[in-house]
Formats: sequence, C-alpha cells, structure tokens
Amino acid sequence: MNLLAELYRPSLSLLTDLYQLTMAYGYWKNGLAERSAVFHLFFRNNPFDGGYSIACGLQTAIEYLDKLRLTSEDTSYLGTLTGADSRPLFDEEFLDYLGGLKFSLDVDAIPEGTTVYPHEPLVRVRGPILQCQLVETPLLNLINFQTLIATKSARVCSAAGVYASDTPHDRVIEFGLRRAQGVDGALAASRASYIGGCSGTSNVLAGQLMGIPVVGTHAHSWVMTFPTEREAFDRYADAMPNNCVFLVDTYDTLEGVRNAVEVGRRLRQSGHEMLGVRLDSGDLAWLSIEARRVLDDGGFLNARIVASNDLDERLIASLKTQGARIDTWGVGTKLVTAFDQPALGGVYKLGAIQNENGQWQHRIKLSEQTIKVSNPGMLQVRRFENDSEHRGDMIYDELLDWKPGDNANMVDPADSHRRKRFSADTPSKDLLVEILRGGELVYSPPSLDSIRERVRENLNRTPAAVQRFEYPHEYPVGLEQGLHDLKSKMIRDAREHS
Amino acid sequence: MNLLAELYRPSLSLLTDLYQLTMAYGYWKNGLAERSAVFHLFFRNNPFDGGYSIACGLQTAIEYLDKLRLTSEDTSYLGTLTGADSRPLFDEEFLDYLGGLKFSLDVDAIPEGTTVYPHEPLVRVRGPILQCQLVETPLLNLINFQTLIATKSARVCSAAGVYASDTPHDRVIEFGLRRAQGVDGALAASRASYIGGCSGTSNVLAGQLMGIPVVGTHAHSWVMTFPTEREAFDRYADAMPNNCVFLVDTYDTLEGVRNAVEVGRRLRQSGHEMLGVRLDSGDLAWLSIEARRVLDDGGFLNARIVASNDLDERLIASLKTQGARIDTWGVGTKLVTAFDQPALGGVYKLGAIQNENGQWQHRIKLSEQTIKVSNPGMLQVRRFENDSEHRGDMIYDELLDWKPGDNANMVDPADSHRRKRFSADTPSKDLLVEILRGGELVYSPPSLDSIRERVRENLNRTPAAVQRFEYPHEYPVGLEQGLHDLKSKMIRDAREHS
Repeated sequence: MNLLAELYRPSLSLLTDLYQLTMAYGYWKNGLAERSAVFHLFFRNNPFDGGYSIACGLQTAIEYLDKLRLTSEDTSYLGTLTGADSRPLFDEEFLDYLGGLKFSLDVDAIPEGTTVYPHEPLVRVRGPILQCQLVETPLLNLINFQTLIATKSARVCSAAGVYASDTPHDRVIEFGLRRAQGVDGALAASRASYIGGCSGTSNVLAGQLMGIPVVGTHAHSWVMTFPTEREAFDRYADAMPNNCVFLVDTYDTLEGVRNAVEVGRRLRQSGHEMLGVRLDSGDLAWLSIEARRVLDDGGFLNARIVASNDLDERLIASLKTQGARIDTWGVGTKLVTAFDQPALGGVYKLGAIQNENGQWQHRIKLSEQTIKVSNPGMLQVRRFENDSEHRGDMIYDELLDWKPGDNANMVDPADSHRRKRFSADTPSKDLLVEILRGGELVYSPPSLDSIRERVRENLNRTPAAVQRFEYPHEYPVGLEQGLHDLKSKMIRDAREHS
Repeated sequence: MNLLAELYRPSLSLLTDLYQLTMAYGYWKNGLAERSAVFHLFFRNNPFDGGYSIACGLQTAIEYLDKLRLTSEDTSYLGTLTGADSRPLFDEEFLDYLGGLKFSLDVDAIPEGTTVYPHEPLVRVRGPILQCQLVETPLLNLINFQTLIATKSARVCSAAGVYASDTPHDRVIEFGLRRAQGVDGALAASRASYIGGCSGTSNVLAGQLMGIPVVGTHAHSWVMTFPTEREAFDRYADAMPNNCVFLVDTYDTLEGVRNAVEVGRRLRQSGHEMLGVRLDSGDLAWLSIEARRVLDDGGFLNARIVASNDLDERLIASLKTQGARIDTWGVGTKLVTAFDQPALGGVYKLGAIQNENGQWQHRIKLSEQTIKVSNPGMLQVRRFENDSEHRGDMIYDELLDWKPGDNANMVDPADSHRRKRFSADTPSKDLLVEILRGGELVYSPPSLDSIRERVRENLNRTPAAVQRFEYPHEYPVGLEQGLHDLKSKMIRDAREHS
C-alpha cells in the first residue's frame, strides 16, 4: 500500500508554500543552502480538549519524501513566477540546482499509533536547511490531519467500547466520504480512522487502495424505489442475501424492524442469516432498546443494531449511559472532519543550526507566552513506564549531556515549579526512531494492522484519567533539566537583547 | 485546468460508498438498473449561521463524471469482496455489466459562483437509477466541500472589504495548506477560496495546476537563521529584492518594522520597492496602527501591512471596527477547514422515478420534521429580480404545469402561511443549466476569473441584510404553489398509510 503513489500524479513536489521556495532561494543565494539544521514538528495542545493524541500520517509522509524530486515541469513552472518588477523571482541557475537536487535528509519520527503529547517532536528533520524548509509544509499537511483524525477515531472507538475488554462486541464504522474535505480529506481520514480503531469504511476506494474492509448495504432511496418497505427489503434480500442490514427508518422505524424480522425469517429458510438493522434518525437510545426487543422476540438474537446520524464520541457516550442497545456505530461527518476542532495546530520549528565551522548552535522562537517558545536542540523523547502504565515522557536534547540510563529530572515547560524525577533504573525507551538517513529509507513500515495493535497497546497503558473526555488529567511531559536550563538562559538572553 | 486529471491517478471510479454498489447490484438483479430516476443534490441550512451560500465544485464534479468508467482493476477489486457467508458479494456477470457501463446521465446544475440557498437543487441528476446512485457519493464529496469553502471565503473577503466599492485596496490571501485536511483538502480549498474572492494562495501546487496566483516571502526560521533580524532582512533583500514582505514579529514587532524601513531604504536606493511587512502575533489592531505610522514616517506610504494569525471573518470584522490598518489578510486554517462548521450537510435525494410504462412517479423521503421532507419532482429554481437586487427564488417541478412566464405563487417550505407572489412580468431566470446530456458535456465551463466575477455580481445583488453575519435576514425561497400542494398531499397520504 502506497497511498500517494497509488492515488496521485507523479509529482507532488510543489505541494508546499511559496515562502519555502523563496527562502530556499535566499539560502542558496547567500551560500547557506547546504548548512545543516534540525527542525521539529510538534503540536502545542491535544485536540478536542483531550488528554492524549495518536501519532499518524508518517507512512504517507515517508511516501512523500521518498518520491520527492523536482521535475522539469516543476522548475519550468517556478520559472514563470515573477516579482513586483515583473521580473522572474528565481534565477535559472537556482532552478537547475533545484532540478538536480537529491534529497539527503535524516528523518527520525515517532511511529504511527503511538500516544503522543504536546511539545513532543513527532518528526525531526535534519540536513541541509534548504531541504528542511522545502518539506515543512507537506509534512505538516500530512501529519497534522492524520494525527487529528486518528485521535478523533481513538476517542470515538473508546466511547463505543472498542478498547474495553468487556464489550468486545462493539464496532465503529467510518461513513464520512460524502461530507469529507475533498477526495483525500476522505481517503486519509479512512486510513487514520482505521488506525484509530474503526473496523471498516464505506469508502470503496479506501478498500481498493489500502485494503481497509469496506461495508455497506442500502440507502433510503432503495426503499423509496419500491411501493412498500417490505417489498424493498424482499428485493434486496433476493439480490444479496449474504449482506443484509436493513435500513428501517424510511417510514416508521419499529414497523421497519418488524418488516426486517419477516424478511429475516424468509432469509433463514433459504440458508442465510440477516446481519442486522440500521437506525438513522430519531431517539437512538429508545429506538435501539425497542428494536432489540423486536429482534430478540423474533428470534434474531445475533442480529446487530447499527446506528448512524451525526454521532461523535460524546453522543455515543451519552447513548451508552442511557442504555442504548447499539452495537455497531456508523460515524461519518464528525469523525472525518474532526468536529469540533477541524485542524491540529502542528508547527515545525528550527531547533539548531550549524555555524560555518560545523558546530551546532541552538535556536529558539520567542513568544510573549513562554509556553509558545520553541524548544532548542536536537530533540528526542524518553518514555518512562512500569509494567502496566506509561508514567511520563521527558524531552531531551541529544546535543547536551543527558544520556539514556542517567537519572532523569524533568521540568514542566509551562510551570518550572512542577518537576518530576525518574531514577536511572526506571524502564524507559526513546520514542523517535530512525526513518531516513541521508535520504535513504532505513525503516520498515509496519502494516496497518500492526499500527492498529500499537494503538490498542498504547491506550491500554495510558492512565484512564488521561483518557477521560471531561477535564482529563494531564499526562506528565517535561524538559530534561539541562535542556530546561539552557532554554531559560536563551530566553533571558534574548529578552535582554531586545 | 483539470484538477482531477492533473492531480489523480487514472481511475477514481470507486470513490463511492459501498452501498451505492450493493444497491446497484440490487437494481440490476431486479431488472431495474436502467429505470429512469431523478435525484437532487441540496443542503438544508446555510453554513456558519449565514444567510447565503456560494455554489462551487461543479467543474471538479464535471471532470469526475466525464472520466467515469470502471476499469478492469476496479471490477477485479469488487470481485474480491465477500458477504457474511464468505461468498462473493457480486456476480461475475454484474461486474461485466459495470465494466462495460457507459455513463449516459443528464445533469443540470447551478453554475459555480452563484449565490444559493437551502433546499435549492445545486445539481440535478437524471437517468438510469443505477448510474444516478453510483455518482451520489462523489458528487456530494466534491460539491459539499467546495461550496462550503467558497462560502467561507466570500464571508472572509466581505469582512475584509474585498467586495466593498470604497476599500478596493484590501486583499485576502489563503495560507491554509499546512493545516488543511489532506492534499486536496488543501488544493480544492485553494480553488474554492480563490473563487470566493481571495487574491492568491501560498500553495505552489495550486498555482501550478490551476493558475492561481501564488504568494509568499519568508518565515520566522529565516530570521532565526541569522545573528540579527536586521541581517536576516538584508540578506533576504539581497537575494530577492522584488519580493520583500518582511515578517517583523520574531523578536519585537515594532523594532521589526523599523528594521524593515531601514532595509526598505536600501532597497529603494537599488531601484526596488519594499512591498510591505507582515504581523503574525500580538494585538493586530494596535500593532498595525503603530506599524502604519512607522512605515508612513519612514516614507513607505504604499508598503502594505499583511496580517495573519488565526483570522476568520468575525475577527477581521472586529479588527476593522477597532481601526486596524491592515490591508492584506492572510487567512489559513479557519478558511480551509471551514471553522467552525467543517462540513456542509448536503444530501442527494430521489425526486421521481419512472414506472414500467415510462411515466414519472413522484417520490418523497419522509421525516418527523416537515422541513426535512425532501421535495418531489424534477426540480428547477427560478430567480426573480429587479434592476439591483435578487428578490426571491422559487423551486418548481418541471413535471407539473407551472411554466416560466406564469404568475408565480410560492410557499415557504418551513411555514406554509408565509407566501410570496411575483407577477408574470417580473424579470426572472432559471438557475440550473444543462451540463450533460446522455453523458456528453453540453456546457462550456467558465474560467476561474469569470466564476470570481459571478460571485462579485451575485453578492452585489444580494440584499445586505441577507449578507449580515449576525442573525441575517432570510432570503425568500419558496415552493411553487402546485409543488407545495402536491408535496402536502404526498405527506398526508404517506402518514395515513403508516
């Protein structure tokens, strides 16, 4: 599966902001194009006022980086761009340089399906600063969106009980194609939703390109095509007896369930089993309880009750609380467009740059709000854990002295009085792994199924209080003491200078 | 420009919900595949609690329909899908039928850039019911999103004064790629934003594929690369003197503006003119007023002040009220993800179907809420106007007796006591035009520029009260009296039956 290669035209290399190219030109003109730098992609807040996020989109980003190369069409197009004086923005010579550019970046990243938290670099990009800049926008585009949706999906699936050991029966299906934000607003959402825990999608192209299970039966229009609902169900059952989930709310929902039971009996006589019914309007809690009774009384104890209609994690949780007998949740618009926060505010910030002697110089981006000041360095994340739970993450700078195995003292980036300590013998591991070295892939991308398994494993080890929807407990993420001290000094120095 | 053909792989034919294919199979098995039907694509509420919407996405939908054909890879994939009994969902013979299918639909639609309102069919699809169903999901995907974004863009541009005759100086630039929902969550948004009134985009691929003007200069990372801000500006100006908009808020904004003025003087000496400065944080109203003063005092009366940072139409309106001296608005996330309503709830409903004798039979989809009952028939929209304004739209059914030129009596679909009448001599026109006949294109797609002009024209003729953000006046849209009566009778009949 290679979503970008399957889906798109040969070159998406210009899927970037123009300012990346004008800066690239500036670096090149100033002889700085090959100067090494390191950038980090991270976000500052978990989406949906939640307590965690799920890293996603890396595989798509790898596909992007792997094919990245400016074609002659690309450079010709750039040659047509002009500035205020109507003269070309870019020299021919620079365009030749771009056309001949072989990307040689070192990329490290947190594998997809891992729980991640604010300020942690999801992706670290190191190499010639010109190359680092060109990939900023596409990396943000690809990682921001899939991380947002995988997180939403994990929340929806948690609400439905997909991750609870006691209700393994519940499933969530992603139905969002018709309201998604464009073609791969849908496709990338199908991928990320599946990673977050959905069992399948309605989107056939997502099945074809990525092997995600596809599901679907019929719409209201099918029922409206025939003189009666009963005839519509009969005709559908005749055509496709091995895929019968009857949509029962076109006229009167419970009458529809009774019609489904009748047709289910006929199906059974012919050796087939009705899969279930779907409710798409009305009071889903009450209707599902009544529908369950009609199905059970009719002898269809295993028939599933599918529900859809503007569902999200909060509505699902509320329906569960009210005793809804729904076991398959069709979630569409609010999942794939990430209602009510349609964007993850991921950013990409310079952490360090080499000087002319090849020595790394730390860099920070200031802000009036200390929490928005970026972290300097070449960052890695160390996750501390015990047998059952993740206990805290520490961001450290590989350019400084701290090494895995040392005692870990960490400081909350938002409140330097909040500190946490893990002794040297606390089990821990680095979250970022090597993806590209010198532009070459050194990572074996996991299958979608093993990414799904990682989500389950990670959520199982994430404290329940962190997963709560309302006022979740804040998972501890801190800066390594030395990094904290360096950053504080840099902020003080910069503010004194200005 | 053909966005889909340029951007995507040969076949997007399976960009549809599985239930469209299972229903297609049902129609085919029941001998109904070629039965003629008519469907309408419409929405029930203007997004963002607004008073109008801008139709958009038709051209992309045309590109989709024009190329639509199931390849052998598509049908092979469908052949792998199985039902509950692990047997194939689809017969070989059906897959052959699909593989040989030549789409022969009649499509009518409201041209892009037209103001549209709830319940009006944006697209009408007529032809074999199997074909009508297969295109439902992709049409919804393509039209819902672009209509949503064009509407958002028109609102943002209105707030900025792009459509006001007295502030022709203001511009809006779309910067959304990094936070958009996927690759063409960004590209389609760039297109729709441009149609809605933006002057350009940061997205270079949108420029390359669609000819949209691209803009951009430099980021904070450029400034952070050099020892001082002043040096960073100097180096940028040396490299690209004809494209200088200096980002001034990396350290201290007004100090940044002063640095820009210094570099601007140097530029001027070399025969170039600084384009402006960009503010990306802080109190944009106050900073822009102060920045304007510094620029004017420095002799840069024409230098523009670009502002960005989480802008949307409400924030722009508020900044304008506070006297902000911003003349170029960089709008990103909230535009391209359509904050705070990331989806348009467009639907696609059956209006009529032919019986075995070829006679049209009206159909409605019932709902407990009368406003959600679909309109039966083969619908067209008549817009009544005077010299300066659109006065009201009437939805009528071409299968009934009313004809353009008759007196028009219309009834509010939400409140049958609200009626409106236009006499036969009121100037009026049909909004839906012929797009495809028998699957062949009979429409000359307008250029992006002429679509932009249509938006301007339409907004100029839309009452100001309808365009207001807060509690906009409801533009009159009614059902033609005969259609209203037929629909009322159908609802009564259906409710008596159930």
